[in-house]
Parts: sequence; structure tokens; C-alpha cells
Amino acid sequence: MGNAADIAKELAVPPGGLPSQIEQIDHRLNLIAAWQRGGADFSARCVDIGCGQGDQTAALAGLQQGEVVGVDPGPPDYGAPFTLAEAQACLLASPLGARVTFEHSDAPSYLASTPLKFATAVLSHSLWYFPSQAAILDTFVALRKAGVRHLALAEWSLSIGHLDALPHLLSVLTQSLDVGPDSEANVRCPVSPAVLRRLAEQAGWTLSHEETLAQPSLRDGEWEAAAGRALRGETPLMQTHSDALTAACERTKSIACMDVWAAVFT
Amino acid sequence: MGNAADIAKELAVPPGGLPSQIEQIDHRLNLIAAWQRGGADFSARCVDIGCGQGDQTAALAGLQQGEVVGVDPGPPDYGAPFTLAEAQACLLASPLGARVTFEHSDAPSYLASTPLKFATAVLSHSLWYFPSQAAILDTFVALRKAGVRHLALAEWSLSIGHLDALPHLLSVLTQSLDVGPDSEANVRCPVSPAVLRRLAEQAGWTLSHEETLAQPSLRDGEWEAAAGRALRGETPLMQTHSDALTAACERTKSIACMDVWAAVFT
Repeated sequence: MGNAADIAKELAVPPGGLPSQIEQIDHRLNLIAAWQRGGADFSARCVDIGCGQGDQTAALAGLQQGEVVGVDPGPPDYGAPFTLAEAQACLLASPLGARVTFEHSDAPSYLASTPLKFATAVLSHSLWYFPSQAAILDTFVALRKAGVRHLALAEWSLSIGHLDALPHLLSVLTQSLDVGPDSEANVRCPVSPAVLRRLAEQAGWTLSHEETLAQPSLRDGEWEAAAGRALRGETPLMQTHSDALTAACERTKSIACMDVWAAVFT
Repeated sequence: MGNAADIAKELAVPPGGLPSQIEQIDHRLNLIAAWQRGGADFSARCVDIGCGQGDQTAALAGLQQGEVVGVDPGPPDYGAPFTLAEAQACLLASPLGARVTFEHSDAPSYLASTPLKFATAVLSHSLWYFPSQAAILDTFVALRKAGVRHLALAEWSLSIGHLDALPHLLSVLTQSLDVGPDSEANVRCPVSPAVLRRLAEQAGWTLSHEETLAQPSLRDGEWEAAAGRALRGETPLMQTHSDALTAACERTKSIACMDVWAAVFT
């Protein structure tokens, strides 16, 4: 159960969507490997904060090591083509499900209410969904207070190594003009690695490892570029961003993804 | 007097600055060639709106065709290491000076007050200095009313063909968060080619030619990246932009420039 294809076929996958689901799980396994290089421990129970539909949760469960609790405050009916509830139910019903529990909660409330202890907390591509930097800080503080030993983070780095990823980067800067706590978009609080490092340190964590991973073949860049181009703003600021994004898309044959930042704090 | 080196040595050039001044004039000659491909006529009198220190004015005068009036509302003491007044005086005192006049005025006021007629109006890297899109529109309308036959524009395109130009692009998006009519920066109204086309058409002009020129070796990208990195804003929006710019600079050995958009309207 340790490889991406075996894990991906256990998930709720739309018809024809298996190749991109395999790539997504492969990416999540790469992140686990990066966190392990940084000393993160998945042999005991871990918590996946902002687990969403459970891609990272499934990859962690696929390690066949400790059990995994996925925590997400998102509405059960959020997401397409499968909702959070549907995707989570599918994972729970699979052979991976024996190691997995899902909790519908924000992290500080969940951590205050559970008697469970966690070796490692993972926040994997969930940080930009937070409503604010203050909410990220609250979660980092709550994880510290809960005695979690390793904090493992992964998020888009705002840095590109190839021009094909420019639409992804510009779509995030464009969307950043239009974010807020009421947003339903994927980009609500687009923080950089530098800001995440500062927030973690403010919460008492110490950086022990960080690296940058290229993951160009994921489809996220393409999806975000479409989301950025769909924004209609008439301010000069939005026009400038939006026109730069359009120009980048027009010069790109196949939109790639930004690099990903992975880090471990203790 | 038609080549960049001959023209550049007539200008106010700081010690050691001649190579980059030659590159700048070479770029301005390339723009003239692009506008000529689009049918712009420099055999009769032309007006250089937002002439600044006179680089484009000098390149136009170097054609040895019609006379050139450079118009700029900028304070005579603006600019470094030479002020507008010093740079313009130097050009006027050179062999090129016989074909050149400078007027310290905004374009609509100047055009309303002069009896002169112009075959072509040039706005070359001056559009982003305007206080607003409305002010650009007013100038396009005034040029139309004044009977100018060709409107020749050149501005950074917000589009890059090489990753080395990413800091230039991101510096402009970063600076666009901090612009306004009171700004002293180079980037005050960073409009895209699409917006400029729309403003020109709104003023009654019809696009007859446009092209994109690569000019990577100019130093503007480097200067703007420094200006963007010097901005200190504590909003999440500014942090995100600024950290993306920093990441781009850290990955770039030699900062290049965005492509330039050149267009002719009749």
C-alpha cells in the first residue's frame, strides 16, 4: 500500500481522473519523504490539519505506520466533483480506513477537546485556506500546547523554476487582491514560506529542516490560473494583475506548478 | 548621428555610464524602427510626450529628419544623477540640439497653447508616469484634437519571455500596490497594452500596428527590482508580493527586462 497508484485507487476518483489522482498522491508521498528527511516521525499517531478530502491523510495512512486523524472545519458538502463528506467516507471504507479517523472541527477546538497525543502534525497545502495569519498562528500555538513533537508544513512557495509556472504564480497574486475570510476559493491567505517561518517561530517552534520541491506536473497551476482569470475586477490594480496573468497564459503551452516549500519544526 | 553610440555621447552621462546609455539609446532607436514599420512618420515635426531627460527625444533628433518638441510636466530638479533641467540643457547644447525644443508642461495644456502642428506624437516609457488612466485618456484626446496623424506608444508589456525578467515583472506588480498621484516612483500607473489600446480607441484612435520587442539587456529591470524590494508594507497583500519578488531575485543571477510593447495608432 506504499505506492501512489495503490493508494489513489482507494480514493473517490471521478471517471478518467485516476492519472491525476496518482500524481497528487505521488506528490503527497514526496512531501512525507521530505518531512522524514527533516526528522518528522510518522511511526506514532499523527494529525493532518486541514485534511480536506484526505489526499495527504491517505498518503500518511499508506505508510502503514501510526494512525492518522484528519481534522478539517470545512462544510461536509464543500468540494467537487466529490464533497468532503463523500471523499472522506470513501477513504474510511477502503483498506486504508482502519488507520484513519476524520474530525469535523477547527484545529484549536479539536486539540482542546481530545485526550489523544500526536507525534507529528501535518499541514499540507492547507495553510492558504486559513481565514487569516492570526488563525494560522492560533493553530501553531495550539499544536505546541498539545505537546506535538514535530510540525510538518507544505505549501506553494511563491517561487518558480520555469516560465511555464508563471501563470500559477500570477494567479495567486491576482487572487490575493480578492481574498477574505468569506472566500470559497483555494487561495484565501496566500502566505510565503518567510511568513510561515515567522508565525511558527512566534508560536514557539524552531525550524529544523526546509527544502523546495519541484512538482510541475500537478494540475493545480492550471486550475488556479483559470480561477485567477475568472476574477472580474475593474480597479486598475486588478486590471494590471489580470492582464499580466492573461499574457503569461497566452505564452504558455502547458501550465505547470510553482515549487513547493516543505519544512519541519520541532 | 544615426547610431546609438554617437547619440549617447552627446547626452549627460555619469562617469562610467556610457555603455548603459548607449544601450538605452539603442533601445529607443529600435522603438523608432518598430513605429516606422507601423507607418509612423518622423519626416515632419513630432512631439515627445513625457520626454523626461530626453533619451527618446535625442534618438528622434538623431534621425536628422523633422524637428522634435519634448514635453514633460516633471519638476526641473527631478531625476538623478542629472536632473531633468541639466539633462535637457546638455542635449540642447549638443549638435542634436538644433532640432530640439523642450516645453515644461503637461501635454493637454501645451497642445492647447501652441500653434505648431505635429505629424507624430510619441509616448515612450512615459505612460506609467501618468497620475491616472484618466490623465492618459485626456492626453490621447488632446493629441487627437490637435490633428496629430500618428500616435506612437511604447511601454513595458507586463509579459516576460525569460525567467530572468521575473523580478522586473513582480517589482511592477509589487509597486502597483503602492502607487498614487503623489508618487515619485517610476511606476505610478502601470497599465497593460490592453488598457492602453482601450484608452486610445476611446479617444478616437485606431490601432494600425503593434509588436513586442525583447530588450533584456537594459538595466531598468534591475532598478525596478531594487525599488520594489525597498517598499516596506506590512499588509498581507504587500508581504505576499514582496516575498515573491525576493524569491525571484534570489533565483536570478542577472536581472533582465520585460518585453516592450510598441504600437502605432492613426
